Amino acid sequence: MFRWILLFCWAPLLQAQTDEIRAMLQNSVEVWNRGDLVAFVSDYEDSSETTYVGRDMVRGSKAILERYRKHYPNREAMGTLAFSNVEVRPLKAGLALVIGEYRLKRTAAGGGGAVGRYTLLVRHTQSGWKIIHDHSSPL
Amino acid sequence: MFRWILLFCWAPLLQAQTDEIRAMLQNSVEVWNRGDLVAFVSDYEDSSETTYVGRDMVRGSKAILERYRKHYPNREAMGTLAFSNVEVRPLKAGLALVIGEYRLKRTAAGGGGAVGRYTLLVRHTQSGWKIIHDHSSPL
Repeated sequence: MFRWILLFCWAPLLQAQTDEIRAMLQNSVEVWNRGDLVAFVSDYEDSSETTYVGRDMVRGSKAILERYRKHYPNREAMGTLAFSNVEVRPLKAGLALVIGEYRLKRTAAGGGGAVGRYTLLVRHTQSGWKIIHDHSSPL
Repeated sequence: MFRWILLFCWAPLLQAQTDEIRAMLQNSVEVWNRGDLVAFVSDYEDSSETTYVGRDMVRGSKAILERYRKHYPNREAMGTLAFSNVEVRPLKAGLALVIGEYRLKRTAAGGGGAVGRYTLLVRHTQSGWKIIHDHSSPL
């Protein structure tokens, strides 16, 4: 009986969480492609503990915004972003691992095209799902 | 009163978890430096859901072992491993995020030196702390 309750309650709950996280990521792509870095970084948890690992290790959502501003100073440098092969793995209630690939279409003047992989750790907060850690690396 | 209970119980518990995770990582380095890839990969959870993201995305602890065997076919290719700037961030009971840097000292014939950053997601299991996801990228 308990198994049936799990099946009927837990599976739809996980699916709902996964759908919410995918919607957050889709929104990230849309705001990036509108050139809105502040909105893009608002998907990271507004905390000094939020971390970004790439070539640098950046700590805190404010420093993460500064890093994006430095690397993507204008619309041409931002190019057009797309995510693919996104997988969401629920870990605990309100906590999930996301892996995926990013692709940036960009003019040569903007820095040229770029592709890579990312790992995100996302947490459900009062403001919705937020990224608490991002590890991104180019291919 | 409740805050004091938290302070006295929770903080030492977190510290104990962090110490256990650091000990697991130290053991990883030691078995690598003995040339024991099977022992090294035994720190990954033995599951088809365990993932490794680098230049490839590899799924399952068996495939992760095969990847290590392919990239590090002999003692010289394995070189000498060291971790630095390791940070452990407890997420929930039995679940933590680890970020750190790796450095591989290696002869030119073995492939030359390599440095990079990693993100690990580790979970406490009946067999101790195990890596359920690894994202590693060279600098």
